[in-house]
Amino acid sequence: MTESLWPDDVALAEASAETIRLTDGLIERLLVVPPGREARVYDAMRYSALAPGKRLRPLLVLAGSRLFGVPRRSALQVAAAIEMVHAYSLIHDDLPAMDDSDLRRGRPTCHKEFDDATAILAGDGLLTMAFEVLAHPDTHGDPAVRVELVAALAIAAGAAGMVGGQMIDLIAETETLDIAAITRLQRMKTGALIAFSCEAGAILAKAAGDNRTRLRGFAHDLGLAFQIADDLLDVEGSAAETGKPVGVDAAAGKATFVSILGVERARAQADLLVGQAVAHLDFFEQRAELLRQVARFVVNRRT
Amino acid sequence: MTESLWPDDVALAEASAETIRLTDGLIERLLVVPPGREARVYDAMRYSALAPGKRLRPLLVLAGSRLFGVPRRSALQVAAAIEMVHAYSLIHDDLPAMDDSDLRRGRPTCHKEFDDATAILAGDGLLTMAFEVLAHPDTHGDPAVRVELVAALAIAAGAAGMVGGQMIDLIAETETLDIAAITRLQRMKTGALIAFSCEAGAILAKAAGDNRTRLRGFAHDLGLAFQIADDLLDVEGSAAETGKPVGVDAAAGKATFVSILGVERARAQADLLVGQAVAHLDFFEQRAELLRQVARFVVNRRT
Repeated sequence: MTESLWPDDVALAEASAETIRLTDGLIERLLVVPPGREARVYDAMRYSALAPGKRLRPLLVLAGSRLFGVPRRSALQVAAAIEMVHAYSLIHDDLPAMDDSDLRRGRPTCHKEFDDATAILAGDGLLTMAFEVLAHPDTHGDPAVRVELVAALAIAAGAAGMVGGQMIDLIAETETLDIAAITRLQRMKTGALIAFSCEAGAILAKAAGDNRTRLRGFAHDLGLAFQIADDLLDVEGSAAETGKPVGVDAAAGKATFVSILGVERARAQADLLVGQAVAHLDFFEQRAELLRQVARFVVNRRT
Repeated sequence: MTESLWPDDVALAEASAETIRLTDGLIERLLVVPPGREARVYDAMRYSALAPGKRLRPLLVLAGSRLFGVPRRSALQVAAAIEMVHAYSLIHDDLPAMDDSDLRRGRPTCHKEFDDATAILAGDGLLTMAFEVLAHPDTHGDPAVRVELVAALAIAAGAAGMVGGQMIDLIAETETLDIAAITRLQRMKTGALIAFSCEAGAILAKAAGDNRTRLRGFAHDLGLAFQIADDLLDVEGSAAETGKPVGVDAAAGKATFVSILGVERARAQADLLVGQAVAHLDFFEQRAELLRQVARFVVNRRT
């Protein structure tokens, strides 16, 4: 299947809706519930991976992949794998031993809907399945590409990336971090997976180093802008809009971009970063219009 | 490096000691603690992955690999990856929300030595790093081999294997399983990773299907024998010998091979299974002597 993804002038709303439909459709097929007693962990994996959401990371994968004419099936496999990793990180983050959250995406968190043990296993199962999906021949005909995706995801999601960022985030509850330390924390905690989402298309297309560098630059700035927007939502948003508790960071006495910079400067910084991010895409001209729209949406979203 | 592994008549004690030394040496190098605040999760990963232990799975990888003349470096990469997955599963299993164990391998469990949140992240980090290690060019020069290892490990460790087995094990605390259900549970919970350990050498050597089948047959019977021996130790062993609490299953009212079959029939069943296991190795003649010794050791061990 070499069906391509959207024309250059596709509207963000359309691409976004189709991303949700296609990604969720694939995750449904990858997570068919077996007849045995282990069905319970599959139910919990589906509950979290298919929870209503923006599917921002899959959208970045698809928008990045269409720059290089990557076949839809390949891009979707990677999108599903990344969404599984994202869902796993939310499940474990929400556990009583971590952030102790009851609400996520407007519904009970996984451990509230099931129980703590099932939630731990559901997270473990999703993380593991992400690698199974990337390693599958459906992802790409060339094993070298598949194994490069595995390595890149493992580095982004592991102790030098997302898991390390979560570790620092926990330490930040008892230690006051300065802006440099918070920037590093966020680049690890959320930035690394966003960067992988942006670069995946270039890996799938075996794109030249220059293009990889452009996408990495875009992702680098976008990831930080995304996090500042998240911090702003924690201050300015409502639980009804965001589908999760707000005011959490302030209540925990945690330093954030907003607590250090103030709302106005944080907002200006996010806008500046998005401007920087899209500048990395100039080379792609009209083809990158969707990625530019995604970037602008990221800092202006209300949820 | 194509340094080979041991002569055919190597003694089990020597091979075992060298496996521990080489595997731990590699894990040490793979888990160098970085200077940032994320050091804490690396400390916890090292604490568990380098805890004193038999390194049975690495020994199976190395003993299986030497049947096919696999270079030592390749086999060791896989051994380290599997030991990381094993260590992660123990960390998460021991958590208060799961088995709630304070003692493991004669030391405080990871969450007792650190805290629950750090233990969750350490497990996540080890699981993720296992895939990074398999995907690394050091594991094999051919990306097709590396990606096959990734796929096989993900299937063995995921919801259709180890994680699914752990799910059923939790359900077994409230539901009485019969011997067929317990056999299936154990094949998933411990058997799948042991099977991957035995087959990894054949994957690394791109061995013919026949040889893969032989090793799978060996692993299939060995995995079950291993679990029965574990159940026997839970009844007959002492905490001092095993380094973890004993009598746990009986206290939890959990059905095991021993509670259903009784000690004597369980012991006979384990011996029968080991006999069956080693019969699968006849084709390899003298070359498989180490694997045979490992199999016999597995059911006669006291720890």
